[in-house]
Amino acid sequence: MVKFCPPAIIVNFKTYVESTGKNAVELAKKAERVFHETGIYIGIAPQLADLSTVARTVEIPVFAQHIDPIRPGGYTGHVLAEAAKEAGAIGTLINHSERQLKLSDIDEILKRAKEQKLMSIVCANNPATSVAVSSLKPDMVAIEPPELIGTGIPVSKAQPEIVSGTVTLVREVNGKVTILCGAGISHGEDVSAALKLGTQGVLVASGIVKAKDPYMIMLEFAEAMKR
Amino acid sequence: MVKFCPPAIIVNFKTYVESTGKNAVELAKKAERVFHETGIYIGIAPQLADLSTVARTVEIPVFAQHIDPIRPGGYTGHVLAEAAKEAGAIGTLINHSERQLKLSDIDEILKRAKEQKLMSIVCANNPATSVAVSSLKPDMVAIEPPELIGTGIPVSKAQPEIVSGTVTLVREVNGKVTILCGAGISHGEDVSAALKLGTQGVLVASGIVKAKDPYMIMLEFAEAMKR
Amino acid sequence: MVKFCPPAIIVNFKTYVESTGKNAVELAKKAERVFHETGIYIGIAPQLADLSTVARTVEIPVFAQHIDPIRPGGYTGHVLAEAAKEAGAIGTLINHSERQLKLSDIDEILKRAKEQKLMSIVCANNPATSVAVSSLKPDMVAIEPPELIGTGIPVSKAQPEIVSGTVTLVREVNGKVTILCGAGISHGEDVSAALKLGTQGVLVASGIVKAKDPYMIMLEFAEAMKR
Amino acid sequence: MVKFCPPAIIVNFKTYVESTGKNAVELAKKAERVFHETGIYIGIAPQLADLSTVARTVEIPVFAQHIDPIRPGGYTGHVLAEAAKEAGAIGTLINHSERQLKLSDIDEILKRAKEQKLMSIVCANNPATSVAVSSLKPDMVAIEPPELIGTGIPVSKAQPEIVSGTVTLVREVNGKVTILCGAGISHGEDVSAALKLGTQGVLVASGIVKAKDPYMIMLEFAEAMKR
Repeated sequence: MVKFCPPAIIVNFKTYVESTGKNAVELAKKAERVFHETGIYIGIAPQLADLSTVARTVEIPVFAQHIDPIRPGGYTGHVLAEAAKEAGAIGTLINHSERQLKLSDIDEILKRAKEQKLMSIVCANNPATSVAVSSLKPDMVAIEPPELIGTGIPVSKAQPEIVSGTVTLVREVNGKVTILCGAGISHGEDVSAALKLGTQGVLVASGIVKAKDPYMIMLEFAEAMKR
Repeated sequence: MVKFCPPAIIVNFKTYVESTGKNAVELAKKAERVFHETGIYIGIAPQLADLSTVARTVEIPVFAQHIDPIRPGGYTGHVLAEAAKEAGAIGTLINHSERQLKLSDIDEILKRAKEQKLMSIVCANNPATSVAVSSLKPDMVAIEPPELIGTGIPVSKAQPEIVSGTVTLVREVNGKVTILCGAGISHGEDVSAALKLGTQGVLVASGIVKAKDPYMIMLEFAEAMKR
Repeated sequence: MVKFCPPAIIVNFKTYVESTGKNAVELAKKAERVFHETGIYIGIAPQLADLSTVARTVEIPVFAQHIDPIRPGGYTGHVLAEAAKEAGAIGTLINHSERQLKLSDIDEILKRAKEQKLMSIVCANNPATSVAVSSLKPDMVAIEPPELIGTGIPVSKAQPEIVSGTVTLVREVNGKVTILCGAGISHGEDVSAALKLGTQGVLVASGIVKAKDPYMIMLEFAEAMKR
Repeated sequence: MVKFCPPAIIVNFKTYVESTGKNAVELAKKAERVFHETGIYIGIAPQLADLSTVARTVEIPVFAQHIDPIRPGGYTGHVLAEAAKEAGAIGTLINHSERQLKLSDIDEILKRAKEQKLMSIVCANNPATSVAVSSLKPDMVAIEPPELIGTGIPVSKAQPEIVSGTVTLVREVNGKVTILCGAGISHGEDVSAALKLGTQGVLVASGIVKAKDPYMIMLEFAEAMKR
C-alpha cells in the first residue's frame, strides 16, 4: 500500500457515469499510472458499490465517499466503518458539501474512523467551518466553497485570500492537519496556486472525472505538484 | 440467475458484524445452499460495500439495502441505482424502518429502480402506509412494524389481524404486488403463519443473521414455506 | 369561526417579508375583507411565530404551515400539534414541497392532526404521490408540481391533463378528500380552470403574497370561484 | 428589556404540556417573579407558537428554541430569524441535542442571528463539539451531554471533569463566549457546582418545567447563583 505523503491529489469519483462500475476501475488504473510515473500521492474515492473491486485492482489508496456514525447493529442502508475498511478503504471523505452532516455526527464518524484506522478527510464550506472541523482533529481538512464546485473556477484563483486566510486560521487551532483545497480545480496552474497559498494538496472531481483525457489532466496536476 | 418465484425469503444483512465482509460471503453461501436444497427463493441484502463480492460469489439474488433518488452526477456519498446494478444487485430494499424516506423520494427511487430493472421491495410500518406505498406500484411491499423489529416477537403472531388486515387493504389498491411480512420472524412456524395470513414471503434479519446456526434456521424457514 | 365550505382559497404565507410579522397581520385582514365581500372561504397559513397574533386578529381560518410527528415531551425546536391548536390554528399544511416529510411522519402527523381536530392539507408533487397521500385519508390534498411553484405558470394551464388525471386517480382511492390545485396560480382564469378540471380550490403563495395589490388578486380569485 | 448579565438561568420550555399555550404564559410569569425577587438573569425559551404571547406578557428575555438557516423567501414551514425577532425573541437556541443541525447550518444560523441581533446559544454534546462550536463565535455555548438530559443526574456532578475540562478547552479558542452547563440540573447545589466548575450559568428544562413547584425551584436556582 502506498504511504500517505503530501503533496497529494485526492480524486472524488462522485456518482458520475464516467466513474461508475467498469469506468471506475478504468479511471483508477489511470490514476495509478500517474502515481507510478510521478511518485505523487494520488488517492481515489469511488462509490461504495465500486470500492472493493477498485481496491482489489489498484495499489493506490482508496477512500470511501462517506461512512455513517454507527457501530455494528441494525442500521439497514447505512455505511459501517468496518465494512468500508474490509472492502479495502484506507480512509474516508466526511461531510462533503453534497453529503453534509450534523456536527455531532462528524464528531462520531471521526471516532469511528480512528478506531478503524481510516484516514479522515473532512470537507468544510468556508473559513469558519474549516476551523471548526479542524478543532476536531481530522487527518485532513478540505476547503471547498460549494458555490464553486463543478464550475471550473478554482477557489485558489477566484478567492485566493479565502484559501490563505483559511490556512492561517486553521493553523491556530491545529498545527498538524493536512489542508486540501477543492472546488473548481481544473488546470495544473490551479494546483500550483493552491500549494503556494499554503495547502498540501487538492481534492478534485469533475475536473478530472469529466475531462476528455483524465490521465493527461492527472499527469498535469501531479507535475504541477513537483514544482 | 435465479428467477423470482414466491413464496420467498429475503434476508436483510443490515450492518451486523456477523454479516459484514467475509462473514457476508459466508452467510450468502449458506443461503445459497438452502436454496439449492429446497428450491425456495432466497434473496439476500448485504451492505453496499459487500455487494459486488457477494454477488460474484453466489448465484442467488442479491439486493441493495438502499438506493438514492438520484441520477448520475455530483452526489458524493450517495447510492446510484446504476452502481448498485453494475455491482450485481437485481433489486433493492426501499424505505426500511431504519432508513426511512420522504414520500417523494420513495416515488423517485421506484422510478430509478424501474429504469435500471431493479426489483423493488418497499417497507412500510403499518397498514395505512403499506397501502400508500402499494399504490406506487412497487414489485414487493414488506410490512414491518418497527416496534417488533429485532424482538423475536413475530408480527404474524403478535398482531395476526394486522397482517391479514393489511393484505386485504393492499389488495384493494394493488392486485399484483408481492406482500412480504417482516419483524420478529424467528421460527418456521412464524413463516407458515405469515403465509397463511395471505403474504407471499418474509423479510428477515436478526432471526437469521444472529442465529447460532443461520443455515439451520434458513432451512427451517424454507421447509416451512413448502407446507 | 368560518366553517369550511369549498370551493376554497388557501393562502400560504411562506416566509416572505411581505407576509411576516406586521405584514402578516395586514395581509390576513385583506384576506378577511375578501371573504366578507364574496363569501368565498379563504384560509391563510402564516408562519408559526405569527400564528397567534394573526388568529387573534381575524376570524377567517388560520392554518399552521407544518406540525411535527411528536407528542408532548422533550422535543426542543419542534412544532407540537397542541401548541399550534392553542395558538389558534384550525388546521395545518403537511408535506409542502419546501418541507417534505418521510412517509411514516406524514402518517403520524395525520393522526396527531385528527386527535387535535386540526384540518389536514397534505401536499403532493405528482399524480402518484397524490394518490398515495389520499389513501391516508387527509381532509384535503394539494397537487403542487414543485417545478412550477413560484413560476407564475399555473399547473392548470401548463399541465391540465395532470390535474384532471390526478383527480380521477385520487377519486379511485378516496371519494371524500377535498382536492386543491397549487403552483403557479396567478390569475382568476387559472382558478376557474382549476375548478373546471375537477378540483375544489387552490393553494396559492407568491401569486398573492408578492402581488402589487394582494387584495385585488384575492378578490379576482374569489370572484372566479363563483362562476 | 432586561440586559444580559451572567450568571444566568435559561429555561428551555421544550414541548411539554406544562409549558405549552396558557401554561407557557403562567410559567413565564413565575420566571419573571423570580427575576424580580433575586435580580438573577432568567431567560425563557417557549415554543415558537407561544413566543409572541409570552413575549408580550413578561419583560424577561425570551428566546426561540430554533431558527432555520434561511433568508426571507419560499421556505414553507421553516423558522425565519426575522419572524422570531418580530414576535419578541431576543435570541435563540441553536443545535439543541433534540434538534441537531448540520455544521454548515449552525454557521449560517449564527450569521442570521447576528444580522437580526439575536443572541445565540449553541448547544454541544461533548467537549470536542463544544470547542468546535465555540470557534464559530456564538454569544453562548451550552454543554449538554444528551445521555444525561432529563435524567436528573447533573452533568456537574456525574462528570465534573467534563465540565471543567470543556471550559478549559473552550477558553483556548474563545475567551469571550458565555459558557452554560445543561442536562440533569435539578437542585440549587447543581447550579452552584456548575458555576464553581467555571461556567456562567445553566440551561435547564424538565428540572423546572416538570417540577411540582417550578417557582420554588427557580428561586432555589437563583439563590444558588448568588453564593
